Amino acid sequence: MSFRDALGAALPADRFADDPDVVRAYANDQAAWAPSGRASVLVRPAGTDEVRRVVEICAEHRVPIVPRGAGTGLSGGANAVDGCVLLSMERMNRVLAVDAAEQYAVVQPGVVNDDLRAHVAEHGLWYPPDPASSPWSTLGGNAATNAGGVCCVKYGVTRDYVIGMEAVVGRGDVVRLGRRTRKGVAGYDLAGLFVGSEGTLGVITELTVRLLPLSGTVPHTIVGAFDSAVAAGRAVAAVAESGLTPSALELVDRYCLRAVDDWKKMGLSDLGDVLLLGRVDTAGEQGEREADRLRELFDGAGAAMSMRSTDADEAEGLFAARRLAYPALERLGPVLTEDVCVPRALVPDMLARIDAHASANGVHIANIAHAGDGNLHPLIIVPAGDDEARVRAQRTFEAILDDAIALGGTVTGEHGVGLLKMRGMRDEVGDTVLGMQRAVKNALDPVGIFNPGKVV
Amino acid sequence: MSFRDALGAALPADRFADDPDVVRAYANDQAAWAPSGRASVLVRPAGTDEVRRVVEICAEHRVPIVPRGAGTGLSGGANAVDGCVLLSMERMNRVLAVDAAEQYAVVQPGVVNDDLRAHVAEHGLWYPPDPASSPWSTLGGNAATNAGGVCCVKYGVTRDYVIGMEAVVGRGDVVRLGRRTRKGVAGYDLAGLFVGSEGTLGVITELTVRLLPLSGTVPHTIVGAFDSAVAAGRAVAAVAESGLTPSALELVDRYCLRAVDDWKKMGLSDLGDVLLLGRVDTAGEQGEREADRLRELFDGAGAAMSMRSTDADEAEGLFAARRLAYPALERLGPVLTEDVCVPRALVPDMLARIDAHASANGVHIANIAHAGDGNLHPLIIVPAGDDEARVRAQRTFEAILDDAIALGGTVTGEHGVGLLKMRGMRDEVGDTVLGMQRAVKNALDPVGIFNPGKVV
Repeated sequence: MSFRDALGAALPADRFADDPDVVRAYANDQAAWAPSGRASVLVRPAGTDEVRRVVEICAEHRVPIVPRGAGTGLSGGANAVDGCVLLSMERMNRVLAVDAAEQYAVVQPGVVNDDLRAHVAEHGLWYPPDPASSPWSTLGGNAATNAGGVCCVKYGVTRDYVIGMEAVVGRGDVVRLGRRTRKGVAGYDLAGLFVGSEGTLGVITELTVRLLPLSGTVPHTIVGAFDSAVAAGRAVAAVAESGLTPSALELVDRYCLRAVDDWKKMGLSDLGDVLLLGRVDTAGEQGEREADRLRELFDGAGAAMSMRSTDADEAEGLFAARRLAYPALERLGPVLTEDVCVPRALVPDMLARIDAHASANGVHIANIAHAGDGNLHPLIIVPAGDDEARVRAQRTFEAILDDAIALGGTVTGEHGVGLLKMRGMRDEVGDTVLGMQRAVKNALDPVGIFNPGKVV
Repeated sequence: MSFRDALGAALPADRFADDPDVVRAYANDQAAWAPSGRASVLVRPAGTDEVRRVVEICAEHRVPIVPRGAGTGLSGGANAVDGCVLLSMERMNRVLAVDAAEQYAVVQPGVVNDDLRAHVAEHGLWYPPDPASSPWSTLGGNAATNAGGVCCVKYGVTRDYVIGMEAVVGRGDVVRLGRRTRKGVAGYDLAGLFVGSEGTLGVITELTVRLLPLSGTVPHTIVGAFDSAVAAGRAVAAVAESGLTPSALELVDRYCLRAVDDWKKMGLSDLGDVLLLGRVDTAGEQGEREADRLRELFDGAGAAMSMRSTDADEAEGLFAARRLAYPALERLGPVLTEDVCVPRALVPDMLARIDAHASANGVHIANIAHAGDGNLHPLIIVPAGDDEARVRAQRTFEAILDDAIALGGTVTGEHGVGLLKMRGMRDEVGDTVLGMQRAVKNALDPVGIFNPGKVV
């Protein structure tokens, strides 16, 4: 039986899409610059057993599987490889259980991040990781990429919340990794290994995620306006050195503010050239003191203006603007998105280097950043159709990766390696560690069918 | 050149101990019941390059290496295997760097846990993981076993703090795993994989651990006395269901209290039969409210007595008694230490099952527990020299592991698999996952020299 016939015999017909236009719509994530191959078929399984059958048949026929969530990735990790099955987890979108005493939820991988938050809020619980894509991206994709977000500076990343999972591995084995208890050390942390593995070790079919109690505290929002990104970076370093831990510390520069204003008429660029948006969610008097201290640190670092927002709508609007920055810039042309992370004290140095690369290469670079983590997203913008500018942008992209490594940082703080960061990752970790990564990949994917050619 | 001659040529003479009595003193951890083999030599390297040379020579001669810290483990993970090099990291005991802005410390593996805490406190920082062995155990051993402790209920375990490491792997390659930045997703999380791997993947020669700001808050201590372990377990379940997160919630039963009293004359057993010791470290009014709430939950669950300790010395004495329970019991005879972890709502069920096993098998079981995590340490006590009782104790030990698995828990919450939990781990994770673990082991230790015969 041919591969396609075997698949067809194993799953109901409505699980498949062969139409090239439909398949093509699922063949890329949002890394516009990453190459993608021609998939053979799109499969939308309705449950774990269907995933198992797909993996069995793919293993037998040695057909690659590219698992994907909502396709909001920015490194090409979900891009099709030639002849692959695109395995979209969108139908497996149920919250299976919420255990309030043990503080976890069990979810299928296609549950949208914001939907989980809304669901568990009804139980007085909170799922912290909040990538900018949270209205669309799914928990499976968040786990596969170890997604970060705005709250990470205080609450950590996806890996800190995934405690267990079900996955289909090898030639079609369904396994449970990790635990549901608060602690557990029974063997290697394979669940942790799967988080951030970008679909290269197997297909995640269920996740157990730790939850925190939902706080009733209304956070304080503190805004600082600075004359340059480097000046704002100095405030970020000062916050780090103070030992204060805000629950968010975001940077948005003038390019982003103007792009959002042009689109949404929010008048943000009147506030200043580069904004730092800080949040403090500590309760009571302690929270008041921390909010005051954050504003003092902004002022001490040379803020042209600072304020504490007392209006919840205004505060929400400022953070909404930060989330809109990326789509607003995309309206202006193709965007090449960086994701470097450097020591927080070196944020001003890294921002200065980014400025210098923009000037030297004649490209526009807008900056948004999870600045409190040292996680910068310089966005290299190129006029549509300008191939020569694309070459300069690519050169700038690689130079920024090199600088991040030189400053003791990483080429990817939260977006993952995918296709775009494979060169940078190799330079960051070195050949021996890359060899260890490949050995792990080969040990857990002996047939070599899970998202081949990505990451390692 | 013979193996011993090659080692002798590679390292200064004072790094070795061949004297059988000295070697034997390093051939066991504190798991009195786990078998240990005859080591060939004890090596105490003074630096990474010496470790590298030892690994190179061992790989060439296919001699096993058993790395060890202070030997305070309770699962036999550091026990000698026949013909091995015992590699004690005790000389590599320097804190290499503290970065206050980035909130991390870089340490050699032989640094004692309490020494690191004291060191970083001078920088206004705090290293949370606090196993009961913290006055003696080392960071290398803590990382190798993913050690827990009292504070985990609120602050997590060792894995939550180790962000990077240097290790000697393979045939003597020195590698850096993980990162020093706040975030990073460049490839598989090999640093996380090494945490809890019990020396089976390589030798950790340096660790980068995340730190938190040192809080100036004096914690509240709340004590509840209960008529039985099961009644105390009901209070633990009530705390879990309330959503309250104390910074400690420990259980100490009458056997432990009496053993400590007999030794230290503290008068603890006058307080009650089974004690719950709670701590709340939230600042200000919020902390006051949480402390009141914790006491209410104790009372609501049927505490015979409850109190909030306002005296810091008294509070410290109560937690000191909890730390003394294990050595106090060891004075009474050989102790077989369990380490199961179950869902918190099932703590009363698990304690009832433990009671029933004690009665059915005619053995004494004392209970201490990190109850707030559901992590129970039933301690099976046997009269010295009573071989028949040892058999009953072993049967009880295995039955408790089975019950933990049946309740959705794990056979080891924080002590590790070592030798004592290999059967339980296999039953917990199943053959397919055990096969994945072994595949990872073989991929990263192709020569098979790192702590062979342990864990997987």
